[in-house]
Amino acid sequence: MKKIAVLGYGVVGSGVVELFYKNKAKIEKNTGTELDVKYILDLREFPNDPYADKVVHDINVIINDPEVCYVAECMGGVNPAFQFVNSCLEAGKSVATSNKQLVAEKGDILLQTAKAHDCNFFFEASVGGAIPCIRPLHTCLAGNDISAAAGILNGTTNFILEKMFCDKMGFDEALKLAQELGYAEREPSADVDGHDACRKVCILASLIFGKHVYPDSVYTKGIRDITLEDVELAQSFGSAVKLIGSTKRLENGKILSTVMPMVVPADSLISHVDGVFNAVMVWGDGFDKTMFYGRGAGKLPTASAVVGDIIDCVKAEHTVTSHEWVLDENTDFIADMDAFCAPRFYRTSAASADVYANAAAALGLEVTESAETGCIVSCCDNKTADAFAEALSAAGVEVYSQIPVMAD
Amino acid sequence: MKKIAVLGYGVVGSGVVELFYKNKAKIEKNTGTELDVKYILDLREFPNDPYADKVVHDINVIINDPEVCYVAECMGGVNPAFQFVNSCLEAGKSVATSNKQLVAEKGDILLQTAKAHDCNFFFEASVGGAIPCIRPLHTCLAGNDISAAAGILNGTTNFILEKMFCDKMGFDEALKLAQELGYAEREPSADVDGHDACRKVCILASLIFGKHVYPDSVYTKGIRDITLEDVELAQSFGSAVKLIGSTKRLENGKILSTVMPMVVPADSLISHVDGVFNAVMVWGDGFDKTMFYGRGAGKLPTASAVVGDIIDCVKAEHTVTSHEWVLDENTDFIADMDAFCAPRFYRTSAASADVYANAAAALGLEVTESAETGCIVSCCDNKTADAFAEALSAAGVEVYSQIPVMAD
Repeated sequence: MKKIAVLGYGVVGSGVVELFYKNKAKIEKNTGTELDVKYILDLREFPNDPYADKVVHDINVIINDPEVCYVAECMGGVNPAFQFVNSCLEAGKSVATSNKQLVAEKGDILLQTAKAHDCNFFFEASVGGAIPCIRPLHTCLAGNDISAAAGILNGTTNFILEKMFCDKMGFDEALKLAQELGYAEREPSADVDGHDACRKVCILASLIFGKHVYPDSVYTKGIRDITLEDVELAQSFGSAVKLIGSTKRLENGKILSTVMPMVVPADSLISHVDGVFNAVMVWGDGFDKTMFYGRGAGKLPTASAVVGDIIDCVKAEHTVTSHEWVLDENTDFIADMDAFCAPRFYRTSAASADVYANAAAALGLEVTESAETGCIVSCCDNKTADAFAEALSAAGVEVYSQIPVMAD
Repeated sequence: MKKIAVLGYGVVGSGVVELFYKNKAKIEKNTGTELDVKYILDLREFPNDPYADKVVHDINVIINDPEVCYVAECMGGVNPAFQFVNSCLEAGKSVATSNKQLVAEKGDILLQTAKAHDCNFFFEASVGGAIPCIRPLHTCLAGNDISAAAGILNGTTNFILEKMFCDKMGFDEALKLAQELGYAEREPSADVDGHDACRKVCILASLIFGKHVYPDSVYTKGIRDITLEDVELAQSFGSAVKLIGSTKRLENGKILSTVMPMVVPADSLISHVDGVFNAVMVWGDGFDKTMFYGRGAGKLPTASAVVGDIIDCVKAEHTVTSHEWVLDENTDFIADMDAFCAPRFYRTSAASADVYANAAAALGLEVTESAETGCIVSCCDNKTADAFAEALSAAGVEVYSQIPVMAD
């Protein structure tokens, strides 16, 4: 019999306990090991909870109990989660976490602690919730040179953008609905300003490229400026507007990571990912491209990933199978936004196709889509994109929006 | 230094060698182990190949060489692949295979041999080619009770159906194009009659439900009868026609596995999977649903999965992490097609909406889509579906096609 401790008994932590007990027999058969939850760490008491007797308030009870082999960290935040997780790993206990902030800010250190103490630090739930993407990236796809990953990493913003797209709601109305349905917080900044997606991009980038990428090196722009008019014009071009988190290795070897609204053409599967669902597309030399899709948040979906990690910890025994990335103090490997290239979508005051075509031609660009009040031009860097907007202004056309287009 | 042997130097086997050497440094860093390909087993000689000196013709050279720890089986077929793989596993060598026929027909035995000899038998490439789906199913999603899986498991038929959908080709013309492009064999039966997808359904069903499901217990129907008119009518309902492989646990606990053309509504991501790409949707209690998408075949995509498996063999060392399923001689757990329920699509001679509505109402069904030459009716079993067709005939309406609709 080996014991599990759950840190944090909020939405995710209680989901972990619930899913574990629901499928305990199956999990024990799968791992060939008798398992039980011994402790639930939380500041609060849960007198009416069926597992009230497992609740403890002192992390040292867990750290010092040799029966506890596996720890599920579902507290969120960096403090005290970092100290708690680090101490558990130092005690040789493998840890599974759903805490994206912890992984994005301290992943390199925790992975090294795990390795030094012959145990595993897993974080499948930290990107894409229930979606298996972290483990497939460092197992199934490990024979490849992976060059990029991009996708919809935040369900709240995807829900808002879908309501704009399908139900013609404005941003404020769609946000209000998301709040009413419990998809968005009362203070929605972490979602709508892209910070949540930014952390997930950091984790993907660090995992794929092997060097810790911190949130402050990711260009991050949320969806507050996206209007219903933008979404409708994109729709008239057969495209959707999505908040896309992306990281890729450029030809010069530098890593460019971004979070921003992008216009996604219908021929990309990403454009069809609706509601609170997430999806991560990955590109590499052998497999070409592959996409992972599923629920990016929620009690049981997130618990699904944490429990899966615990199962993998059990099966791995004392083999360290978690991936590793290192801290590189020299941040030369980070590209800046000057290196960003993409086709561009413009929403403008009414203009003729000729005006767009002439402005584009003068900059060596092509107009690939054109309507009365906007166009899409071929791939260019930010300077050229701004120059195109200026050329339109000079021709008397007002530019209301400029949004990069996602290339598949 | 640990050595790898590759069995079969055809398209996939040569892809494995190519991808391994391309990313050797990365793979060695990831696994913390020096690795090399020592032998390539094939009946043929490859005098001009850069790895000609590694080619051997006798499996015993590999079996008896203690330096060989990992074997990639890319021969295809059951004989002699089964004997070769079984002998390698008995010698304690972990095996990764791309051979779906081998896994579908002998998976239970080979998994038991692997377990008995403290090594792993992996087969990520056998379903969905490059797509990580087998390993995520038995790792990331292992905390769940998985109830069903369904998807596009054959790229050739998906290419043909897309050409019918997008380019208004007839079946014969689209098949000819697929053959010209090398996507379909000259003898295309394995693809177009559903046998290839059937093997993949067997593997998914066995993995998910823990009991070996043989090809002859899967209802299998290919796409030869699908006409351009069917595809066009489905398109007018906002749906696509796809060859869907599916396995699910019914309420009575029995397993129903099918391969057949289905009408897939646009709100399912599966309907947007185009060209030779594959996708597998999986349903379970914690994660709800998740989808894996990517290239289902081809040299380097398939090699990507095989090399990923080899990497996992190296990292697992002597931990047996491969999943297991058992042979149950009592096939009572297999449901037959009487238990199949789905909405139905009918293409007919011209008829009024009333005719469809009356025939449906008499059977307790609803018409959910209706056009001049066809309709979709709500979920029913095969007897009711046939009764609806008979009612239409009795009303003087000819029924040209009847295709089940995929429910998401």
